[in-house]
Amino acid sequence: MDSKTYVLGVDLGGTNTKIGLVNSEGEVLTQKKLKTSAYPNIDRFVDALASACDVLLSFLPKGAVAMGIGIGAPNASALTGNIEFAPNLPWKGVVPLAAMLSDCIQLPVYIINDAKAAALGESRFGVARDLTDFIMITLGTGIGSGLFVRGNLVSGTKGFAGELGHMTVIPDGRLCGCGRRGCLETYASATGLVRTAIERLQQGNTVSRLSEINPEQMTSYEVFKAAEAGDAVAGEVFERTGEILGKALSNMVLATDPQAIVMFGGLLKSGKWLLDPVRKHFEANLMHVYQNRIPILTSSLDDANAAILGAAALVWENQGRPPIWEKK
Amino acid sequence: MDSKTYVLGVDLGGTNTKIGLVNSEGEVLTQKKLKTSAYPNIDRFVDALASACDVLLSFLPKGAVAMGIGIGAPNASALTGNIEFAPNLPWKGVVPLAAMLSDCIQLPVYIINDAKAAALGESRFGVARDLTDFIMITLGTGIGSGLFVRGNLVSGTKGFAGELGHMTVIPDGRLCGCGRRGCLETYASATGLVRTAIERLQQGNTVSRLSEINPEQMTSYEVFKAAEAGDAVAGEVFERTGEILGKALSNMVLATDPQAIVMFGGLLKSGKWLLDPVRKHFEANLMHVYQNRIPILTSSLDDANAAILGAAALVWENQGRPPIWEKK
Repeated sequence: MDSKTYVLGVDLGGTNTKIGLVNSEGEVLTQKKLKTSAYPNIDRFVDALASACDVLLSFLPKGAVAMGIGIGAPNASALTGNIEFAPNLPWKGVVPLAAMLSDCIQLPVYIINDAKAAALGESRFGVARDLTDFIMITLGTGIGSGLFVRGNLVSGTKGFAGELGHMTVIPDGRLCGCGRRGCLETYASATGLVRTAIERLQQGNTVSRLSEINPEQMTSYEVFKAAEAGDAVAGEVFERTGEILGKALSNMVLATDPQAIVMFGGLLKSGKWLLDPVRKHFEANLMHVYQNRIPILTSSLDDANAAILGAAALVWENQGRPPIWEKK
Repeated sequence: MDSKTYVLGVDLGGTNTKIGLVNSEGEVLTQKKLKTSAYPNIDRFVDALASACDVLLSFLPKGAVAMGIGIGAPNASALTGNIEFAPNLPWKGVVPLAAMLSDCIQLPVYIINDAKAAALGESRFGVARDLTDFIMITLGTGIGSGLFVRGNLVSGTKGFAGELGHMTVIPDGRLCGCGRRGCLETYASATGLVRTAIERLQQGNTVSRLSEINPEQMTSYEVFKAAEAGDAVAGEVFERTGEILGKALSNMVLATDPQAIVMFGGLLKSGKWLLDPVRKHFEANLMHVYQNRIPILTSSLDDANAAILGAAALVWENQGRPPIWEKK
């Protein structure tokens, strides 16, 4: 019998759902992919997910048993086992995903918000391996976050700690999907960056290769490509985005005085265009007791596997305890 | 021998320092007061403080021993035992107060930031007795804060967690004592409220009894009295202050998803003038997952003793362990 332990990690996203068989050293041994958006019916999705899990479990080394399934999903609560009102998933309202998958497969099913899964993954396998106190920020379509305090992920009373993407950064600013105004997410996510670019172009008097792109087709990658090609407007858009994010991060440290900030997500592919202004404005806006000691780190995990590893880490985090949602 | 335990609690403030002999039920048996500002020399202050402690210890019941001395002070760090750059105290730079007092008296000396002491006091003796997760906000000359997560006060990497008074609420807003701009403290502390009143009066075209007060003599109590007397401008000043504070609190819950917010401090003497707009704007600006379940509570401790009890709670919190700063 192998001394390693194994789990399944599920990265449930709006476009794709990736499932990986992971060992305790953080290696993804094999994986499968489902097209999330192809399953408007949640029952069909759960059937397909259970089948994929069964296939992966057949790859377990002889005699080995998987410890459980960990799912990282937007708007998921570890306490209820539900995905609740996720704007980017095909299923509306409250989906009791953990319970539904549990009915199909003989393994404990753990579930957590995707940004918290990312924090767990960095803590167990990544750049936060040696940290007890850090703030994880994920920059994608939206902004997620997870806080580690004294070596533990902060869940909060109802499992909704770490929603720092919804900090108000501009009073009465842009309308957010959450119904409030001026949230960080509306400025410093990939979609926020695009909104800034479009607003900037609409001011007119602007020479930019971004003007040639239909605003509906604009992506953060287009803005990045323009910046790389020397487009000044694209550079300004990154500078402004980095300023807002850097200042917001300098406010976040006021709550928990962390050792570091860890960033992850698609927008980081912009590299220095984003990170240089973030770091500059973060450091310049820190209160003096925090200055020159809180690095902004980026994920050290392989992009393709990071979210699977985060979800997998959730199973080890629970050390064989039954999922919290089962007690409800 | 008495089964109760005893400690000394020291509330070190810019004007007065109060020292109390406290039993484990949170009763202040007897207390003494020093005029902090009368001691520009820190050595003299420590001598006077040690003498006051000795006097109070002579009141211990026969056979009882005090467990230690707890100090709550502005800009104090539990990790270093120092008070660092406190703008409202007579001593400049870094003051190793815990070590200095330890040299004069044969008891362990614990020290902590005054807002965190308040959080410990509410947790042990006050309105947060049954809470594991809450955010403490103290509203005085400045704004302090302390976070409880899973039953523990969050200290942070260097002891500087809970500086939420320095959250930016108005980008490029009022200059703060910390050197940054737009901090919550510049709007929602007692001095912030006064700044709002003076700004409002300077707009002119204003009929208000506050106009009769020399701006240099304006206090939050004057604004309160005017509001009570039906002065519309004073009412507006409270409404605006409550709006900024309520919205800021709605952002703070995003980090830790607490069970409640607890407020304490002189500005709360304004009662409904402050609390009504705070509660209204807090609830209206909460993300929907937090709505209708996070009460804003006010301290249940006797005003005169609350800070002494908070400092005293620090000693019990340490359960006989040596102070952290001694290890440095």
